[in-house]
Amino acid sequence: MELKKPYLLFLGDVQDQLAAKTAQGIVDWRPEWCIGQLRLEGCKADTGLEDIDIKTAVEHGVGTMVIGVANSGGMLPAHWISNIVEALDAGLDIATGLHKRLASIPAVAAAAERNGRQLFDARFNDIGFATGKGHKRTGLRLLTVGTDCSVGKKYTSLALEKAMISRGMNADFRATGQTGLFISGRGVAIDAVVADFISGAAEWISPDNDAGHWDVIEGQGSLFHPAFAGVTIGLLHGSQPDAFVVCHEPTRTRMRGVEHPIPSIQQVIDLTVDNGRLTNPDIRCIGIAVNTSNLEDAAANTYLAGLAKEYGLPAVDPIRGDVGPIVDELQRNFPA
Amino acid sequence: MELKKPYLLFLGDVQDQLAAKTAQGIVDWRPEWCIGQLRLEGCKADTGLEDIDIKTAVEHGVGTMVIGVANSGGMLPAHWISNIVEALDAGLDIATGLHKRLASIPAVAAAAERNGRQLFDARFNDIGFATGKGHKRTGLRLLTVGTDCSVGKKYTSLALEKAMISRGMNADFRATGQTGLFISGRGVAIDAVVADFISGAAEWISPDNDAGHWDVIEGQGSLFHPAFAGVTIGLLHGSQPDAFVVCHEPTRTRMRGVEHPIPSIQQVIDLTVDNGRLTNPDIRCIGIAVNTSNLEDAAANTYLAGLAKEYGLPAVDPIRGDVGPIVDELQRNFPA
Repeated sequence: MELKKPYLLFLGDVQDQLAAKTAQGIVDWRPEWCIGQLRLEGCKADTGLEDIDIKTAVEHGVGTMVIGVANSGGMLPAHWISNIVEALDAGLDIATGLHKRLASIPAVAAAAERNGRQLFDARFNDIGFATGKGHKRTGLRLLTVGTDCSVGKKYTSLALEKAMISRGMNADFRATGQTGLFISGRGVAIDAVVADFISGAAEWISPDNDAGHWDVIEGQGSLFHPAFAGVTIGLLHGSQPDAFVVCHEPTRTRMRGVEHPIPSIQQVIDLTVDNGRLTNPDIRCIGIAVNTSNLEDAAANTYLAGLAKEYGLPAVDPIRGDVGPIVDELQRNFPA
Repeated sequence: MELKKPYLLFLGDVQDQLAAKTAQGIVDWRPEWCIGQLRLEGCKADTGLEDIDIKTAVEHGVGTMVIGVANSGGMLPAHWISNIVEALDAGLDIATGLHKRLASIPAVAAAAERNGRQLFDARFNDIGFATGKGHKRTGLRLLTVGTDCSVGKKYTSLALEKAMISRGMNADFRATGQTGLFISGRGVAIDAVVADFISGAAEWISPDNDAGHWDVIEGQGSLFHPAFAGVTIGLLHGSQPDAFVVCHEPTRTRMRGVEHPIPSIQQVIDLTVDNGRLTNPDIRCIGIAVNTSNLEDAAANTYLAGLAKEYGLPAVDPIRGDVGPIVDELQRNFPA
């Protein structure tokens, strides 16, 4: 589950930019790993990377061709298979986040076999995880949690990692979802793990580390989401976070995909502490990250200032603003 | 995922009674579904059923041969395969709770194929579950929860179903683990479901039902177990219980398989309500079921009386005593 870098990003012939959002996420957060993009005729997405072919990619030392696109249903179009086989024959590994295993495509399986290449399916894993143990591990951990799914937990985690590293802190983003996997180069799509092993997989994602090292762990779901709280609590227990950040989208009125109302930030803090203290009695909230993209500038600023006052915690929009105040709070709570 | 009844229980040649505890559980709770047992030479387990062969089983209308034994590692001994093939050739389905799919054994897969028979692996399922929706369903639900794993949740659920039916109440035991599956004849081993679908599977297990009908749902794990709380919370949210019973073993000092201390019953009640109110705001505890097998009679009685007083709830040992007082409390809380 460790991807060979650098990457060639395969965009196929997808018809809009949104279909290439995984590829774009990799370029945004790991430009140093991205050698170029490979687009087929008619492709309407563009990550801004140079267009190169497989031969050029090999010359530049590319290790993996990442299928960084999602088409409807997560299926692989048949006319992409020849490109994948060509990449395998040229010595590249292949990585995807599709709903079907690459090895289930006979031509791809055969090409991987004859070239001794690795097929990396972000939605599947063959790791024999242990069940969670709940032992305290060395090093420090921060987890992003949310009032809902899709409220910016991955983005916030990556922004925190970047800000921490820029201050000279020792920090690693730890992926738990498929786009995050390509950005970290390692990890597990934790929602695809068998239920008995959720916290065990979270322990694997964030192993023992140096004192003072921070794992910044990408959260998933919400304790208040009636479909996904099992993933959330297993990730919480396995991550045993010292600190957490609550992510929120203030204009949403219903939990994603269900009829349930959005909880308050205070409810999320309380229930995260109530459940999280099982594996870390000192767990604490150190900030609030808000996606204010649906608010005007002035309204966003007023809203964030109000939250900061109400909770006595930094409240920022990690896209519009920056996460510096949350890192300040982290450093105040956990002096080096 | 619906087993054809009645059953022939296959015990193989296991070397002690404990190895046949699944078979024994079926005989204890569903004697009317059990036509006989099939033992090989040297078998040291005995469920008390008549020893019959496959031909006799077929004559008695048996639908499924249940491999009701676990040997170390959950593997199927090679010398049992011929018996399984013989049963398939005689027209029986096969059910197991082994760690490997029956269909992964070529001779078994071929025999099932040529006879059009069903292979039922309790640890696996091919149901395409939806994610949980959290909608209120019709009918009433009771869930057993625990201070730990293996504290009597299945036994308590079955005892409650039996007591409720004997009072003329409309109740069904709903299985969530492999032994429970054979006893209910339907269900899902919920710890084997992919993490994103835990609460969705729980919703499938306990669908809409008549007003006044009770689903008595077998609990799993514990909200306080660092390995399995994801399963527990998904089952809690998907079950949306109106009532729950806390199961407990008072002499245990550590959670099963980990170093964590056992929570108090009050902690379990509080955290179950805090999390469970997401899908049922009126969730309430209606009793305590204790496995007192490690206590002397007098100590057990004193202990149960103390709990009843402390919590203002019925506290019983469902094996030594009976669950009648919990059903009384249920009927007081939910008058017909």
